[in-house]
Amino acid sequence: MSDALVIFTPSGKRGRFAIGTPVLTAARQLGVDLDSVCGGRGICSKCQIAPGYGEFSKHGVTVQPDALSGWNSVEQRYHDKRGLKAGRRLGCQAQIMGNIVIDVPPESQVHRQVVRKSASARPIVMDPATRLYLVEVTEPDMHEPTGDFERLTQALHEQWNIPAISAPLPVLRKLQPALRKGGWQVTVALHKDHQDGPHRLLDIWPGLYEGGLYGLAIDLGSTTIAAHLCDLRDGKVVASSGIMNPQIRFGEDLMSRVSYAMMNPGGDQEMTRAVREGMNALIAGIVSEAEISAAEIMEAVIVCNPVMHHLFLGIDPVELGQAPFALATSDALSLDVHELGLDSLNPAARAYLLPCIAGHVGADAAAVALSERPDMSEDLVLVVDVGTNAEILLGDRRRVLACSSPTGPAFEGAQISSGQRAAPGAIEALRIDAVTKEPRFRVIGCALWSDEDGFAEATEATGITGICGSGIIEAVAEMRMAGLVDASGLIGSAEQTGTWRAQPEGRTHAYLIHDASATGGPRITVTQGDIRAIQLAKSALYAGARLLMDEIGTDHVDRVVLAGAFGAHISPKHAMVLGMIPDAKLDQVTSAGNAAGHGARVALCSVAARAEIEQIVRRIHKVETAIEPRFQEHFVNANAMPHAVDPFPELKQIVTLPEVSFNTGGGDGSGGRRRRRAS
Amino acid sequence: MSDALVIFTPSGKRGRFAIGTPVLTAARQLGVDLDSVCGGRGICSKCQIAPGYGEFSKHGVTVQPDALSGWNSVEQRYHDKRGLKAGRRLGCQAQIMGNIVIDVPPESQVHRQVVRKSASARPIVMDPATRLYLVEVTEPDMHEPTGDFERLTQALHEQWNIPAISAPLPVLRKLQPALRKGGWQVTVALHKDHQDGPHRLLDIWPGLYEGGLYGLAIDLGSTTIAAHLCDLRDGKVVASSGIMNPQIRFGEDLMSRVSYAMMNPGGDQEMTRAVREGMNALIAGIVSEAEISAAEIMEAVIVCNPVMHHLFLGIDPVELGQAPFALATSDALSLDVHELGLDSLNPAARAYLLPCIAGHVGADAAAVALSERPDMSEDLVLVVDVGTNAEILLGDRRRVLACSSPTGPAFEGAQISSGQRAAPGAIEALRIDAVTKEPRFRVIGCALWSDEDGFAEATEATGITGICGSGIIEAVAEMRMAGLVDASGLIGSAEQTGTWRAQPEGRTHAYLIHDASATGGPRITVTQGDIRAIQLAKSALYAGARLLMDEIGTDHVDRVVLAGAFGAHISPKHAMVLGMIPDAKLDQVTSAGNAAGHGARVALCSVAARAEIEQIVRRIHKVETAIEPRFQEHFVNANAMPHAVDPFPELKQIVTLPEVSFNTGGGDGSGGRRRRRAS
Repeated sequence: MSDALVIFTPSGKRGRFAIGTPVLTAARQLGVDLDSVCGGRGICSKCQIAPGYGEFSKHGVTVQPDALSGWNSVEQRYHDKRGLKAGRRLGCQAQIMGNIVIDVPPESQVHRQVVRKSASARPIVMDPATRLYLVEVTEPDMHEPTGDFERLTQALHEQWNIPAISAPLPVLRKLQPALRKGGWQVTVALHKDHQDGPHRLLDIWPGLYEGGLYGLAIDLGSTTIAAHLCDLRDGKVVASSGIMNPQIRFGEDLMSRVSYAMMNPGGDQEMTRAVREGMNALIAGIVSEAEISAAEIMEAVIVCNPVMHHLFLGIDPVELGQAPFALATSDALSLDVHELGLDSLNPAARAYLLPCIAGHVGADAAAVALSERPDMSEDLVLVVDVGTNAEILLGDRRRVLACSSPTGPAFEGAQISSGQRAAPGAIEALRIDAVTKEPRFRVIGCALWSDEDGFAEATEATGITGICGSGIIEAVAEMRMAGLVDASGLIGSAEQTGTWRAQPEGRTHAYLIHDASATGGPRITVTQGDIRAIQLAKSALYAGARLLMDEIGTDHVDRVVLAGAFGAHISPKHAMVLGMIPDAKLDQVTSAGNAAGHGARVALCSVAARAEIEQIVRRIHKVETAIEPRFQEHFVNANAMPHAVDPFPELKQIVTLPEVSFNTGGGDGSGGRRRRRAS
Repeated sequence: MSDALVIFTPSGKRGRFAIGTPVLTAARQLGVDLDSVCGGRGICSKCQIAPGYGEFSKHGVTVQPDALSGWNSVEQRYHDKRGLKAGRRLGCQAQIMGNIVIDVPPESQVHRQVVRKSASARPIVMDPATRLYLVEVTEPDMHEPTGDFERLTQALHEQWNIPAISAPLPVLRKLQPALRKGGWQVTVALHKDHQDGPHRLLDIWPGLYEGGLYGLAIDLGSTTIAAHLCDLRDGKVVASSGIMNPQIRFGEDLMSRVSYAMMNPGGDQEMTRAVREGMNALIAGIVSEAEISAAEIMEAVIVCNPVMHHLFLGIDPVELGQAPFALATSDALSLDVHELGLDSLNPAARAYLLPCIAGHVGADAAAVALSERPDMSEDLVLVVDVGTNAEILLGDRRRVLACSSPTGPAFEGAQISSGQRAAPGAIEALRIDAVTKEPRFRVIGCALWSDEDGFAEATEATGITGICGSGIIEAVAEMRMAGLVDASGLIGSAEQTGTWRAQPEGRTHAYLIHDASATGGPRITVTQGDIRAIQLAKSALYAGARLLMDEIGTDHVDRVVLAGAFGAHISPKHAMVLGMIPDAKLDQVTSAGNAAGHGARVALCSVAARAEIEQIVRRIHKVETAIEPRFQEHFVNANAMPHAVDPFPELKQIVTLPEVSFNTGGGDGSGGRRRRRAS
């Protein structure tokens, strides 16, 4: 027998190879996804394979015990040094001696899949922009006086088929010592901005580099900056961290920051410095938490809304504050981290910013689209990323529409009388008994409900400090369901509602959830003003979604995906009671968690995904809420709970809203205002 | 007549065009080199043409007075504002109405030729890497929410056929204000690193930019840094300046700087900082001298030897101090100026470093090759760039060889007893009367000879302070011709030479040129040690040239070009008397002036020239003197004046060297040393 049949699993790729061919060579010739950093020198162990022996009726092959060459000294040395799992061989050492079935385990695949928690998200297929290559460089020769860099380039071309590389000066500076220390064998980290883009030398080490290779997926929000540190070799998140955006001191919401830039000369640059400093602090923290070296971080992918995008880039966002909301640049950007003032990672590291969809729909919305892929959905899906601004995507395989809606910060607990950010001590879930009208609640940092034993002890440390975004939504919805609030949004009096907790507050009423004022603690209520703020926010969100539905010509969506860090905590039932989102079957309303952050991670792990989102964004049709009269119309109509325009047929299955009305002419609710205006 | 014949001069291009076609349009269609920044909007006036009327028998055309449309209001407005030379029209306004001959004056040509002073150098054809374009950008639209940058890119594609551009963040920051201030009309400065390279946005201005567009050609030498500020539109040098290289404090010559880097941790970075600081000071000086804004400088082209190349880039030059003299990188480099720490020009400016030929033959030698183009020479030309190291090129159309030779700093007046750098007060030319043995000389800063009336008064301010490089060469050669020095290099005594100026100095003699010691001034002599230093230097230079001649298999060169700032001042006759260069007809020995600096200017003015030199350098065959035994052989043999290996048949025509010999056993000249060693 001069050749043998080789079948690789799980790919199923097969071919005949001459006896004596190394498995790695066979895999490469067949295009089997088998990793290797050292290029077959038996030192990196990335090409581990699991040969199968015996009868493989499925493949029609019987594999003899001697189908691979014997365990050799290179494998033994590696095994002694680091250990090789039982049944594993090094693909570069084991030679084909007979018909064989070879399994490539997931950790030996370059393009392995990363499983994700979110139900709606697609798995990530690893295809990182930065990879390691071990390369042997020819020694210099006085008769062929090319530079060391030019010989490295040539070696990469010959040994790895990489056509050309470029190198920043500080990396070039490391080249000569590394080559000499490594005996003309070095590991290089090469990065490409695009799938077919040129390679850039990010770092170089003598011999085989065995340190880490990390990237950061950063979700730069108006309020918080969150970062995930991912291993670029397997996509795993090894550390996560978040901080408040230091720009908050210039304004809580985006438009107040744009105003700050307009009113204060140099104000935009002040905010640029602030966000960059915050980003550096965040990265330094994550580096220290993960106990890695900053130099091991080779990349960062950043997603953010357009105003943060411009401020982070150092571009005055003033045009984003006025029609036509022109972005300075909308395409994806690949930059050196030092251009962005980031100094807590590898100095040659690269940063990738996803494209912006429009002046109000940013790279964060693009990241949500990359995470949720509405463009690949068979049914019509509405993706809502709830934050200070809501970004809304609606579509399916045929078309995808996008808009943004100015919900304001009420959903994040801001501008709510007892509101606070999601932090230990904040009420995050709340139920009101329909009969007794008594509340029970849960606070962040404690798994118990307030009526369970041990709650008081468990919350002693944090206290009960306020209501966060998800808490206020549940509170308002529960108040509506318990008949404490009527369809117009008005809170009834103690007499009208039959509970002492409905207490007068000025000319209106407030519902008392928790009162620790006797011991110097807070008095937590939901006021009429809170209800109005939530009504405005939910109307804006609902109106945006409706506008896209109008544009597509439908009054029904098949699925709703709630995204955003906050979206993870919203109860779909309560969201529908409030009328935040159009009706859908309750089991078709899912949470995608931090989809923008997930999208950033997808782009970080896959350069192909970057090309995809750049394509997708070009195809997304942008609808501008600010100039669309129907948006105002939907907004006004959506004010009620449930609002007047749409009945809630699906909702009726799960909850019956009481037919109460407290609008007796008093109060300063909008019902009252509206009547006064009409008179 | 529906169309007409149009003939452009000086190109001779011709074609028929429909009546009413603007001249600029016709020129573009024929590929006639007619400039335009505004793209035919009648505002930049770059497309000025000179129509010819009457009989053109050479072209067989008669041009009627109405062959062009009448002078129009756009031309009148431009004429009123800035004036248009008589007979000139704007090519974008004048329309073809009949057969016509149109001259494109040099200032309206993009690729105009720049005449150069040097006889040996080829003219520069303007083809700058940075050009201005006026462009009209579509206003933003909420329904098509692309960024302003993406619409600028699209406009450049549509209006100027420029496929894609990239922009650094600080320029992107200027985009939105410029577009709005210019009413959506902006001028952009676009730069391309390569002829077919992508365009990069360097700067942007509202409306038509009428400021300057400059580049710097920088010759970064071990001793001095010289810069020419060139207008990138016509190639003219508008200012020149030079400073001492601040690295001198770390070592006079290159090898002592490499030693400094070897011996002192961080020493290379200290030297990098020093040279960059020096460069910034030089540029700031030239900006102030030329009364321009630093932001108007868009590019710098830098030429230097390999050690300076590495130190300027921030790369430790330690490998250049030992065999095999490996360069970290040898190819040409295109960089952002901020990567090089240069901050006195436009922040987005680009720097181009010519390629290095080898570890000892740098980008300065490449620049000499670009200036002198030995690869295009019909006859065999020897190009010698004399400095602390001599770079030597030998070749013709068929092949070009290069080597470097360690001449040491004697040719620059260093290590010479009365030596000094070329500065006012230095003796730069000297003659010795063959009969009286009396010297007469000229000093820098005064056109008179020392025996002319008024010399004393004219030199009162500067004094007579020492001898510079060209002065010492002439002095030694004149001493040889006057019989004061014998063929072995020994200075005779007063008795042997018959002049009191041959004065004892230790066990040898020195020739007194000038004595102001009575009034506290210097005593300027040429000592035996000086002669030996010059002999070593000239032997090294000669041996290098001979080595290349051996390699090519010839004992004769057709032409000699002396390059280097210093080469401009060497008298060919004296160089040949000394035996610095192989024999050639005296009229075939020319000076190219600062050929390296000229080469830098060529590369600055022409991106095509950059591609050419990159090609040429790949083809140049490098000969390493350090490992070539014949170099030592030539070196020893070249010690005498005239040396023993080659007779001076050509030289015999102009000077007869006296057959004197002072080698009487005394002295400590090398003749004496050699004899002692032999005994």
